[in-house]
Amino acid sequence: MPSPRTARDPSRTNVAIIGMGTVGAGVARLLIDHGDRTARHAGKTIWLSKAVVRDLNKPRGIDLPAGILTDSIDEVIDDPEIDVIVQLIGGLSPAREVMLRAMEAGKDIVTANKALLAEHGGELFTRAQQLGRSIAFEAAVAGGVPIVSNISQCLSANQVLSMEGILNGTSNFIVSQMEEKHAGYEPTVKLAQELGYAEADPAMDVDGTDAAQKLAILSHLAFGATVDWRDIPRDGIDRLDPVDLQYAAQLGYRIKLLASARLIDGELELSVAPTLVRKGTPMAEVRDAYNAIRVVGDAVGPVFYHGLGAGQMPTASAVVADLIDTAVGRTQLTFQTLEYFAEGRPARTVQRDVGKLRGRYYLRLHVSNHPGTLATIAGVLAEHEMSIASVIQHEERRGASEATGSSGSEAFVPLVIMTHEASEGAASEATQRIAALPSVEGRAVRMPVRE
Amino acid sequence: MPSPRTARDPSRTNVAIIGMGTVGAGVARLLIDHGDRTARHAGKTIWLSKAVVRDLNKPRGIDLPAGILTDSIDEVIDDPEIDVIVQLIGGLSPAREVMLRAMEAGKDIVTANKALLAEHGGELFTRAQQLGRSIAFEAAVAGGVPIVSNISQCLSANQVLSMEGILNGTSNFIVSQMEEKHAGYEPTVKLAQELGYAEADPAMDVDGTDAAQKLAILSHLAFGATVDWRDIPRDGIDRLDPVDLQYAAQLGYRIKLLASARLIDGELELSVAPTLVRKGTPMAEVRDAYNAIRVVGDAVGPVFYHGLGAGQMPTASAVVADLIDTAVGRTQLTFQTLEYFAEGRPARTVQRDVGKLRGRYYLRLHVSNHPGTLATIAGVLAEHEMSIASVIQHEERRGASEATGSSGSEAFVPLVIMTHEASEGAASEATQRIAALPSVEGRAVRMPVRE
Repeated sequence: MPSPRTARDPSRTNVAIIGMGTVGAGVARLLIDHGDRTARHAGKTIWLSKAVVRDLNKPRGIDLPAGILTDSIDEVIDDPEIDVIVQLIGGLSPAREVMLRAMEAGKDIVTANKALLAEHGGELFTRAQQLGRSIAFEAAVAGGVPIVSNISQCLSANQVLSMEGILNGTSNFIVSQMEEKHAGYEPTVKLAQELGYAEADPAMDVDGTDAAQKLAILSHLAFGATVDWRDIPRDGIDRLDPVDLQYAAQLGYRIKLLASARLIDGELELSVAPTLVRKGTPMAEVRDAYNAIRVVGDAVGPVFYHGLGAGQMPTASAVVADLIDTAVGRTQLTFQTLEYFAEGRPARTVQRDVGKLRGRYYLRLHVSNHPGTLATIAGVLAEHEMSIASVIQHEERRGASEATGSSGSEAFVPLVIMTHEASEGAASEATQRIAALPSVEGRAVRMPVRE
Repeated sequence: MPSPRTARDPSRTNVAIIGMGTVGAGVARLLIDHGDRTARHAGKTIWLSKAVVRDLNKPRGIDLPAGILTDSIDEVIDDPEIDVIVQLIGGLSPAREVMLRAMEAGKDIVTANKALLAEHGGELFTRAQQLGRSIAFEAAVAGGVPIVSNISQCLSANQVLSMEGILNGTSNFIVSQMEEKHAGYEPTVKLAQELGYAEADPAMDVDGTDAAQKLAILSHLAFGATVDWRDIPRDGIDRLDPVDLQYAAQLGYRIKLLASARLIDGELELSVAPTLVRKGTPMAEVRDAYNAIRVVGDAVGPVFYHGLGAGQMPTASAVVADLIDTAVGRTQLTFQTLEYFAEGRPARTVQRDVGKLRGRYYLRLHVSNHPGTLATIAGVLAEHEMSIASVIQHEERRGASEATGSSGSEAFVPLVIMTHEASEGAASEATQRIAALPSVEGRAVRMPVRE
């Protein structure tokens, strides 16, 4: 279906925001309060024409000019004067339908809806290309850190070799707090909720889903991969025991929820997991709700980005940068060459079999304090070609077993092993065998280690 | 003068490189060895048509296809098939004349020549705009760290409030080595030269000139300022004494050559100076020849960038990203709205009077070990409204005075003072008065402090 509009007003781009939550209000504030600045950077006026809300009477903490608010999505989609829709409805439906209808009505899209892109990106991007429209989505990954444009444009001379990042600010806040305050998981989640860093139901943030969706989007961009986020092996911080933060610290590491994509032998190794990261590296020092991403390109080498991954104004900053790019015409040029998940396009990179992932591992076991236990465990590791780099085993202390949530049996003590490099397949099998040993109690904790 | 070419070949952009030094060879390598990748990211072929060298017989460590090398600049400027010139001649002349002639012949420009832009940017950008041509210069600042596009595009929703960065990799390598190895300045410069991190004459790198030129370019972009780099107060690392690195470490800081731009009361505070940066912050942990920049935007908050600021392939990565942007057409769109130093345009931000800069200071003096000395010095500071935050004065040790290069008189000991916030004017006057006291020997070392 051709666009019903033939040409944009060269001096002005008219914008409608659909969904006036926190981010929407921030976008409106930037457009209204800083119109001069935005016009200077775009070379034209970016005009907030409409803002669609569900409840016209709800207070929004922002003074909107008269006539802007409406509760009718149809009104903005049918308005031929609207050039760009800022689509800030969360979830999948009606967000998907609204986006499709808006594009069919000739509008370009700016969105922050990561879940929608991770789920329906193929359909939406294909339709946009058919219609000659564009979708900009800087705000969908890492909030204020402009990683989408950096991968799509600034580092475009490179083959990206690897990306790893802290992409979920909620998890990073919780882990940083647990480490700094020696606090448990549950009370820290409560604190995060009180401070507004975690939602009432933080499941998607803390179980690795959010980071996996973001990693899938970045992997499409950087590797021309076609990844379903559900296929990314992922582990969250929701089972993280404070004792592991302490052992990691003793070994010279911090634990971070790391999303990782690495090109190995032309295949893409993907994972989201609490990971031991060596202290003193920029990634290990990322605190609070910050996000960070380290991209390694074959020409540029490592480039590290660090900033606020969420919050009203950082996210609004990303949305308005996209609006400026769309008003200027840059988004449309970039969109044409974006290696994004258009349907029917063969993936340039395929995901590597999970068992083939390689890395070092941290193991924490609760073992019986009897002669031969360490020998048995080391023997199982050796059978799986995993060699031991270091071991921590302290003498039995009363109370230590309580901290690990075990049954409190006096005969068991914690044993921590750092391995040299091994395959995920071997590590997984060895860990399962070890956890089943009679001399091992409870679950075996296993986390990857990065230098 | 109108462009003699009317339209580009939509499927191919022809490029000529002028100046085949290290970076030129890197650019050629990316274009020749990775043509598929470049074409994928640009949506068209980027074709290396010509490479201009001074000496056709000099080995270049790269196999160029037959017919590409030439020693005639005129040949590429007069060739109507060449769309873009990668201008990699160093220095001011003939680089300036070549760039002007190339633009007059209808070619867009990509350059890495920071000194040329810092010196003749006004003329070159004005001429480009008159001719409808573009100049891309990502590689001119911070090598592989894409700070130019990040400020011009990715953070365009923001008013930048401050930028501070380690913009000279040579200086950072030298300072990091001096700190880690407890080595002196001269032997470390020699090491840097042996390793290829410093040129035979490293003056422009170590005296702050290079960082000031880069800061001037970034200040034009971020603040719409019109800054002559010579007006930026600057100090280099060439007089840095290892003893100050040690005192800084005792106080919890590292010393970095920091280029800083801050918007204060609508005026721009600019400086380049060895600065005490608190350990554990990302900026303090930037080692070796890496560059880093921290930008604070009013919406996005702080964004931190870290990567390789020099070297063949990181710089080539920036040049080829610019080439892709120019081939796609993004550079031309961005260039139209760039707040760069077009002649005749009034500056949007003016440089703040140097004396008004405010900050904390580190002072190191060599004082006579007599009663009343500290009281006299504290009195001078108080008269200039500088209050003391901390003091280090150790008992006299033999040899300590030698390390500071003083006359070795036994009666003098080092005194280190950290002040609370004060104005540069007050700090400068107080330091001069203190250095002239009979109880103070040699020069007074003064450096700003950042948290």
